[in-house]
Amino acid sequence: MQSLSNNNVIAALEAGGTKFNCALLDTELNLIVQAAFETTTPAHTLAAVRDFFRETVAAHNTQLIAMGIASFGPIDLMAHSPTYGYITTTPKPDWSNTDICGYFARELNVPITFDTDVNGAAWGEKVAGAAHDLSDFIYVTVGTGIGAGIVVNHQLVHGIRHPEVGHMLMPRDPLLDSYTGCCPFHVGCLEGLASGKSIESRWGVPGKLLRADHPAWQLETQYLAQMCANLTQLLAPQKIILGGGVMEQPQLLQMIREHFLVCLNGYGPAAVLERTEDYIVKTHLNGMAAILGIAELALSQLDQEGL
Amino acid sequence: MQSLSNNNVIAALEAGGTKFNCALLDTELNLIVQAAFETTTPAHTLAAVRDFFRETVAAHNTQLIAMGIASFGPIDLMAHSPTYGYITTTPKPDWSNTDICGYFARELNVPITFDTDVNGAAWGEKVAGAAHDLSDFIYVTVGTGIGAGIVVNHQLVHGIRHPEVGHMLMPRDPLLDSYTGCCPFHVGCLEGLASGKSIESRWGVPGKLLRADHPAWQLETQYLAQMCANLTQLLAPQKIILGGGVMEQPQLLQMIREHFLVCLNGYGPAAVLERTEDYIVKTHLNGMAAILGIAELALSQLDQEGL
Repeated sequence: MQSLSNNNVIAALEAGGTKFNCALLDTELNLIVQAAFETTTPAHTLAAVRDFFRETVAAHNTQLIAMGIASFGPIDLMAHSPTYGYITTTPKPDWSNTDICGYFARELNVPITFDTDVNGAAWGEKVAGAAHDLSDFIYVTVGTGIGAGIVVNHQLVHGIRHPEVGHMLMPRDPLLDSYTGCCPFHVGCLEGLASGKSIESRWGVPGKLLRADHPAWQLETQYLAQMCANLTQLLAPQKIILGGGVMEQPQLLQMIREHFLVCLNGYGPAAVLERTEDYIVKTHLNGMAAILGIAELALSQLDQEGL
Repeated sequence: MQSLSNNNVIAALEAGGTKFNCALLDTELNLIVQAAFETTTPAHTLAAVRDFFRETVAAHNTQLIAMGIASFGPIDLMAHSPTYGYITTTPKPDWSNTDICGYFARELNVPITFDTDVNGAAWGEKVAGAAHDLSDFIYVTVGTGIGAGIVVNHQLVHGIRHPEVGHMLMPRDPLLDSYTGCCPFHVGCLEGLASGKSIESRWGVPGKLLRADHPAWQLETQYLAQMCANLTQLLAPQKIILGGGVMEQPQLLQMIREHFLVCLNGYGPAAVLERTEDYIVKTHLNGMAAILGIAELALSQLDQEGL
């Protein structure tokens, strides 16, 4: 069992739009060393990540047995696709059609496990966070964009792409909210109406500069509560975990729970109606969810393949 | 292997709000005999179903080894709940708190497999219909109500209840549609806006009496296309299969496909955008989906339990 030998390590990468978080972990998922690199161009950022892993693996006298990459998207996860392992049609300058998996497979010569940033984070919640041992739950990040990782029957949902919860079309009362959203594709999708980008576009300043009693938070509450209501009706998860920069507003969580109950209006699973404070929660993994999740997924894939 | 002995049979029941469809099938899921009984009171309807199965099992000289029940809801599917196997808080007169599984377990003395009518139908599509061999798909019935069975990674989604897609809150433009829906719980949920009941409530006549060019079908198209768009963004299934009385309107399917593409506006998996006619389809199982699905689930459960 190579994976149990005590100098084996896993490289975990959370590839985000702002920075690339890198961590080297042992096979018990203990953190050995961590670093972050700014997301500039693929040539620069990928090389910095490669050099970090090469150097730290050598410096700690370890052997790299696998790498997990949890990436911003959209990404291609279809095993037989010619662009499997690519960041595909992202509007982010320079990053469209970047073969991120191929790069690290070649440069570090290890098997790669690839998934979305939010799937990585969702799995991290299962491994070490608020979803420990749960079979059915949803992790939603509300940051610059909105995305979700969904676990059903103890497995991540992929389908023929990966969930894009941010593009769910939402109820919106034009008399109460004349703003139609900042999404270039959709009028009135969740990300267009409730992402950090939309808050800034709607009010002219970033959310972190708005007072706690600013009307922005009522609208934000309404859309995120509707989102939680729809996810509950569609999938009846055991828990919804919220993360991302927008959720750092301390007043928001309780406001969402209360409006969520207004949205359900008594129609929902008893556990959800009665213990909403255990049902809609915030992540408490301090930004480590995706790193832990994708490392565990990489390790599991090794085990499944008998390496 | 008792289940392969050639006189073993499965009882399959699709418990609907209008009628209870019953079928006796062999262990290859071939139909032996079928009947339907009107849904009146539990005492009358359940006894009629019991008598049918007792008599046909005896008449065909067979041995009943399992029963599958696919029921209208809401139902309790939580294994450790005191009301597991019950039809719970249905507004249907007399049927609230009906222990449908307990009744047949006692009266027919067989193991019971229990699920929603739409989960049964979804599984039937996998066994014998449009979802043959697919890992990820959704079956939606648009009839008196709206419900869905969802399959992810080859398994039915249950969560802590079962999907209630009909109660998803929908975008609605009050300038184009002033009707807020017929749902007693929600303003603007899918079932309230687009079920057969809502069509009748909105226009004063049942949908089947409305002309093919009646404006009702534009609204119906809009809401069902939005539903398909949201299901696509959330779960990226391989196929969405539509059934139910409302979908018998022949003009509706193509209208939904076209408006669905308008809703996505180019943002979706390539296979979905390019081959929408293979992606959004109608059931072609002629009302047998739930019977076949729940029979297969009953048989699988026997196999899993090694009986």
